[in-house]
Amino acid sequence: MGKVYRGVAASDGVAVAKAWLIAPSEPSVERVEVADPQAEWARVERAIAAAKEELEALRQTALDKLGEAEAQLFVAHAQMLDDPELTGQIRQAIEAERVNAEWAVKSVIDTLVGLFDALDDEYMRQRAADVRDVGSRLLRHLQGGEGASLAVLAEPVVLVARDLAPSDTVQLDPALVRAFVTDIGGRTSHTAIMARSLGIPAVVGLGDITANVQAGQVLAVDGSEGLVVVEPDEAELARFSAQVERQQGERSRLAALRDAESITPDGRRVEIAGNIGTPAEVAQVLAQGGEGIGLFRSEFLYMNRDAAPTEEEQFAAYKEVAEAMAGRPVIVRTLDVGGDKGIPYLGLPHEDNPFLGYRAIRVCLDQRELFAAQLRAILRASHYGKLRVMFPMIATVEEVRAAKRELEAAKQALREEGVPFDEDIEVGIMIEIPAAAVMADRLAKEVDFFSIGTNDLVQYTLACDRLNERIAHLYQPLNPSVLRLVKMVIDGAHAQGKWVGMCGELAGDPRATAILLGLGLDEFSMSAGSILKVRDVVRNTRYEDAKALAARALEADTEADVLRLVEGLRS
Amino acid sequence: MGKVYRGVAASDGVAVAKAWLIAPSEPSVERVEVADPQAEWARVERAIAAAKEELEALRQTALDKLGEAEAQLFVAHAQMLDDPELTGQIRQAIEAERVNAEWAVKSVIDTLVGLFDALDDEYMRQRAADVRDVGSRLLRHLQGGEGASLAVLAEPVVLVARDLAPSDTVQLDPALVRAFVTDIGGRTSHTAIMARSLGIPAVVGLGDITANVQAGQVLAVDGSEGLVVVEPDEAELARFSAQVERQQGERSRLAALRDAESITPDGRRVEIAGNIGTPAEVAQVLAQGGEGIGLFRSEFLYMNRDAAPTEEEQFAAYKEVAEAMAGRPVIVRTLDVGGDKGIPYLGLPHEDNPFLGYRAIRVCLDQRELFAAQLRAILRASHYGKLRVMFPMIATVEEVRAAKRELEAAKQALREEGVPFDEDIEVGIMIEIPAAAVMADRLAKEVDFFSIGTNDLVQYTLACDRLNERIAHLYQPLNPSVLRLVKMVIDGAHAQGKWVGMCGELAGDPRATAILLGLGLDEFSMSAGSILKVRDVVRNTRYEDAKALAARALEADTEADVLRLVEGLRS
Repeated sequence: MGKVYRGVAASDGVAVAKAWLIAPSEPSVERVEVADPQAEWARVERAIAAAKEELEALRQTALDKLGEAEAQLFVAHAQMLDDPELTGQIRQAIEAERVNAEWAVKSVIDTLVGLFDALDDEYMRQRAADVRDVGSRLLRHLQGGEGASLAVLAEPVVLVARDLAPSDTVQLDPALVRAFVTDIGGRTSHTAIMARSLGIPAVVGLGDITANVQAGQVLAVDGSEGLVVVEPDEAELARFSAQVERQQGERSRLAALRDAESITPDGRRVEIAGNIGTPAEVAQVLAQGGEGIGLFRSEFLYMNRDAAPTEEEQFAAYKEVAEAMAGRPVIVRTLDVGGDKGIPYLGLPHEDNPFLGYRAIRVCLDQRELFAAQLRAILRASHYGKLRVMFPMIATVEEVRAAKRELEAAKQALREEGVPFDEDIEVGIMIEIPAAAVMADRLAKEVDFFSIGTNDLVQYTLACDRLNERIAHLYQPLNPSVLRLVKMVIDGAHAQGKWVGMCGELAGDPRATAILLGLGLDEFSMSAGSILKVRDVVRNTRYEDAKALAARALEADTEADVLRLVEGLRS
Repeated sequence: MGKVYRGVAASDGVAVAKAWLIAPSEPSVERVEVADPQAEWARVERAIAAAKEELEALRQTALDKLGEAEAQLFVAHAQMLDDPELTGQIRQAIEAERVNAEWAVKSVIDTLVGLFDALDDEYMRQRAADVRDVGSRLLRHLQGGEGASLAVLAEPVVLVARDLAPSDTVQLDPALVRAFVTDIGGRTSHTAIMARSLGIPAVVGLGDITANVQAGQVLAVDGSEGLVVVEPDEAELARFSAQVERQQGERSRLAALRDAESITPDGRRVEIAGNIGTPAEVAQVLAQGGEGIGLFRSEFLYMNRDAAPTEEEQFAAYKEVAEAMAGRPVIVRTLDVGGDKGIPYLGLPHEDNPFLGYRAIRVCLDQRELFAAQLRAILRASHYGKLRVMFPMIATVEEVRAAKRELEAAKQALREEGVPFDEDIEVGIMIEIPAAAVMADRLAKEVDFFSIGTNDLVQYTLACDRLNERIAHLYQPLNPSVLRLVKMVIDGAHAQGKWVGMCGELAGDPRATAILLGLGLDEFSMSAGSILKVRDVVRNTRYEDAKALAARALEADTEADVLRLVEGLRS
């Protein structure tokens, strides 16, 4: 029997493959006294420049393959290399101690990492990991090394590492990496999120798996159960292989649903759409059979630059998506940023609680020119496909009215200029603040549709920052309170003849599909990878059963009770 | 005609009195080269020690007169004086430049203030004001000065200042200070909050009023309208004097309600209680005719110390209040802290969004010994009066059940020890998270009563940090969404035969009284200063009219619409 290790189930699926160990990238560095500190500093400057080029390339790759949030990590790393505090310390170490560049870099980085690590706090540990990654990159460039690139993989592997740095994950080939297995991390750590977004099984937080596995050993990984079996015996291998086979069979079965309708056996039809963060992601949504784009995040246009994008740049991006979707609907969400994202030219303030702060529509209604340029660009692009416009973070009726006034002004200006646009463009709002859910009956009179943003709605409803691991148990998307708010939203909209979509993570969770269907949700929008799974549930759930399930879920006491109801239906 | 200035209406009421200018405390400092830097540094150390003693005295005064949050400010100032970064810079300036202590302090403080001020951000400006206050205090001690104490006032005055530092406001005699008038600040700035809590009229954010007023000039101030008239003419004086007289008549009229019942003309009786933060505040509540303590915050027991309070210390405090209230009910809220308050021994983590983080019951359910000691202390004190226990920040049914299990365990232990306590002690929860409001019908089965905490409920419902001035317009306690949630809470509780109180600021806002009455609220708990005003509204509002008003408010679109309805009823 193989040795079994239990960790945190971070990303579903099973896999069997040989272990590929990523050694903690700790290049050995020796202290050497130097005669010419200036020359050493010049070497550091060259290494910084090379590292920044590399980070820019990684950012581009991440943007194409993973989306804007992941790409943002590399920007943060590049910014560290621009930090005069950090580079000043390195320079000072070289000059004061007359030592080689490598030693100076290593000692400054080690001190910083030690400081962050000493603060017993998940957030600071993440920062420590970032600093360590930046330091290793810099050392590698100083030593002229290439780094253990994952691009060299020739056969399927299970990656085994203390933790995966963003620069590790972004380079890997999902066709060859069958699973992630790491010593540290939790369900919301970077590695876990990345694994789920790539659809790769993962078990994290295993403690010291790197010490218990040798390169080349066979590993069987069950990401749903959080299990890793090292050198499984024949019976175990057979069991895992059967599971892998079932998984592949399931994938083929789902693939056949690409062009199937999203309709229940008793005839309730819904729309299943994809969420995208860049025009490049349209292809994935279409490949997975998405019927539209339920959320086109416009932030990528605004990030990683020194000034706001021009109307023309935005127009080009929106038009590209409108045309690519060839008449299928595309919901463009207006700028959704806040104090926690670094967009320097917006002059956003430091805030004690950025999630409860100055963000999204609150910023746009304040910065009218910025908002007007985006609205004009969306309107102009609406001539080339079926665009819809959606305002995020609406809390009050006044805000919707103000946003609509801005849209009307943009329309009027275009009319006067003779620029074509879709006069009947649908206008909607995100429902992601409890006040908006509770006031849905009133808000429905103001707009054509709603899209429920469950990520924020759950955060505010349960007063729980979803990125805060300490209270992760309170982030409960299926808590009956959330379902009751969803029901208020749908009932409020339907009473006015308006439709309701959902673009938060809950929309792509197959465990939630039947309940949402039963509550009357009209459109489900999600990452491309979930579309077929959700369509499968829709096609196998009677609407009448879904309604009965939803009614019982609304009367449940706890999320655990709701999950038991769901399991009851599925089994 | 006097010259009229308009600013921000920060605290209601009118006043006429001579101006008393508080000059920006900028002692003149000259640069002197010194022969013995060590002696200068020793002077700084003595000044720091004296300043810290003074701050400790101010903290005590603030705790007695204003409450724990205000007192906390002085702790923060004392901590600055302990900051080795700050003191190190002062020492370095003395030693490197061989200058006098005053010059070193002034230049270090000026640099810091300049840095904070340069960041165009309300939060940082507040920090700049703190640093300036600390710096002035230090300079005053170096120069052996006493500081322009407000204790010297001999006649009624209107205080005119650029801004009021906490150390100014805490020392003043509310009987002689008739109004505040300041250059800077907004409705949620320190000065404004302090003015409202002291019941002193205030106009803030006037720009350069300090430049336009001379000491001794007569000022007429209207804090409700945000008006200041400098040297009013006879007609104006007559008008203001009449208003002041009306105000005084109003105060006497209200004082007569001290022992009156809180009952509407058509017979609906409610309870009007006081909120307290220390046992010393009981006297004020009784003096204002409070029928109970609807919220006894227990945080003062935990703050400004190195270890958790013992069970005995807590028992003594709870018993003191129970006995002082002599059989009238007292609701003790269990520890309500989070990452934004400095209680070092709890090991609370740094958090990106502390208001959505690890706090209150979330901490207590994690730190069982801490929680058990508090529950034992409350139970033991319940033998000496009518105590009730209340859990804050409840989001889910599981949390209530877990908290009740801890309470039951504490009861069982006391039974076994033969220690007397009230076996029928009522158990309640704060409803301050939207999830709890939406699930009130379920939660009502678990407890004896609810108390709605509107400050947090409004924050979460509208996703708006109430301390964030940038989005102050979204902090709307009378937004119909909040009222609808309040209705859900009251209806859910009443259906189970349970009663509902409210202890957030809305409970003490006379504009809200009729609506809350109409929604069916059973208990109103507030700062002592509001009790008589709210009782007055209750005694003059027919319950039937209140119900009709509440029904219309629930159907309003916006908070502005609700306010218009309220005005309609009052006029």
